[in-house]
Amino acid sequence: MKKLINAADSVVGDALRGLAAAHPSLRVRDQVVYRASGPRAGKVGLVSGGGSGHEPLHAGFVGHGMLDAACPGEIFTSPVPDQIIDATRAVDGGAGVLHIVKNYTGDVLNFEMAAELCDDVDVASVLVDDDVAVQDSLYTAGRRGTGATLFVEKIAGALAEEGAPLDVVARVAAEVDDRSRSFGVALTSCTTPAAGKPTFDLPDDRVELGIGIHGEPGRRRAPMAPARELAAVAMEAVHGDLPLQGDLLVLVNGMGGTPLMELYVVFAEVDAFIRGKGARIARSLVGDYVTSLDMQGFSVTVCRLDDELTRLWDAPVETPGLRWGR
Amino acid sequence: MKKLINAADSVVGDALRGLAAAHPSLRVRDQVVYRASGPRAGKVGLVSGGGSGHEPLHAGFVGHGMLDAACPGEIFTSPVPDQIIDATRAVDGGAGVLHIVKNYTGDVLNFEMAAELCDDVDVASVLVDDDVAVQDSLYTAGRRGTGATLFVEKIAGALAEEGAPLDVVARVAAEVDDRSRSFGVALTSCTTPAAGKPTFDLPDDRVELGIGIHGEPGRRRAPMAPARELAAVAMEAVHGDLPLQGDLLVLVNGMGGTPLMELYVVFAEVDAFIRGKGARIARSLVGDYVTSLDMQGFSVTVCRLDDELTRLWDAPVETPGLRWGR
Repeated sequence: MKKLINAADSVVGDALRGLAAAHPSLRVRDQVVYRASGPRAGKVGLVSGGGSGHEPLHAGFVGHGMLDAACPGEIFTSPVPDQIIDATRAVDGGAGVLHIVKNYTGDVLNFEMAAELCDDVDVASVLVDDDVAVQDSLYTAGRRGTGATLFVEKIAGALAEEGAPLDVVARVAAEVDDRSRSFGVALTSCTTPAAGKPTFDLPDDRVELGIGIHGEPGRRRAPMAPARELAAVAMEAVHGDLPLQGDLLVLVNGMGGTPLMELYVVFAEVDAFIRGKGARIARSLVGDYVTSLDMQGFSVTVCRLDDELTRLWDAPVETPGLRWGR
Repeated sequence: MKKLINAADSVVGDALRGLAAAHPSLRVRDQVVYRASGPRAGKVGLVSGGGSGHEPLHAGFVGHGMLDAACPGEIFTSPVPDQIIDATRAVDGGAGVLHIVKNYTGDVLNFEMAAELCDDVDVASVLVDDDVAVQDSLYTAGRRGTGATLFVEKIAGALAEEGAPLDVVARVAAEVDDRSRSFGVALTSCTTPAAGKPTFDLPDDRVELGIGIHGEPGRRRAPMAPARELAAVAMEAVHGDLPLQGDLLVLVNGMGGTPLMELYVVFAEVDAFIRGKGARIARSLVGDYVTSLDMQGFSVTVCRLDDELTRLWDAPVETPGLRWGR
């Protein structure tokens, strides 16, 4: 294993030092990443978090129009309740706090525990479970949360920025999850710094269809195939669960080790597939957003838009990982 | 080799289809990427290009505040003069066109030939040669052009957008190159789709110090080391060539296969090194900007800023690979 780290046990802290140094708009305290500007009175606060190794998720999405704080755990490990409690109290501007939680058992438990212990703050929670690949998995009861997390954080973040109350922000966040589906494909395993060797073995001529973002098993292994066929497998899985229709928001996401050029090759095939179903990509992202360390592969996340969700998606955002103006 | 492609000989065209589908602000015609909005009368046009495999460079930097057109060649292969001629004529708004050329022999020859054949357009040229690692190399006489290309494209692009004349845009572009230095480190080789195997062999316990963006040899091989030491080697090389002082623009760049988390670990070390020399990172970027397919590793590019260059760096930019407002 060769990684750009100082030591396996300091990698999360070292990376957070770099994040803070690179982005003056952020503050890092006790392994929680905050907006440097602090909470805004009357605005619902948004807190997310989860294991590290999925960068830029979540810390890279702290800033205007998205999160108020992110709680990074150790690599592929849930944040502890104390982090979440600190974050929740710190970002409360009096309008309450929304927890955005990917559906992994450890994350769910620790966010629930933190919410219970923050009885001085009005806390609501949304669970993200967009991955259609498998029901129940290594770390999950039900479906896993993957790419839709970014959609939920962006759209709920825009709504909170406008001053919407907590129940509305929570309802729309859940609606985004309801309207979103994902499917991932791995060409290679990831390697965690602590283990120092690949999480799973995948032969040179095989891919894992339906991979999870921690290397959890998918639906099946299949021979390596052209991008067109791999994209079709992912899109059939999505389409079979939630038919593709109308205007879609589409993320073609790299798992961390895949060149951008290849993601654009996949995007072209995803676009052709969607047109073939009579639907349309109205908004899109192509790049590394919800990664799995150095894994090679991609995932596709699709969200059925309506006018209001499109408006919120287009609202200004200013974070290290996602930024645009009007 | 496992890559998300349909075939080795269609990868560039397939990726450009995806780029066009993902970004309505771009148009692709005859393997040239243009702003969909076309040339603006009285604005200097900016054209760059080079081999593919370095995405988002260059096509991802076409848009307001940066390039008017990019000419992608085949993978690690110079664009042909016809592409450059098409691009140059198409983006000329009557104020002339600046060619931004990375210093590789093929690129230099083909851009020169295109400029000569475009005798109906006023063409100036800037050569980017920021890589301090080696003098002369596999594809280069003199120093190689790497990360500073992005700085030149951004700053010259901002100046052109303001309506500066061709000679001024060319002069400032050359000044950015003069003030910039880079050094890269590879942990692994890249693999081109056509070859299907690593470009060079690098043992599991070795790194290549001073790597080029096509896998050209660097200064030497060394044992794998902590990020702090690898960052110090890169920064000593830069500092030894152009002392670090004052306000700096710093890019910690991924080579394509390295997780963002590791780049932030490197950034923290680069920041500490620069503070140790009494200088300051005033502006920065961390991520995959000038890549080498799936290579794992990083490069650092440093530019000595002044007030005017800082102002131009901060000017709005709206491209797939780089975007911010005021």
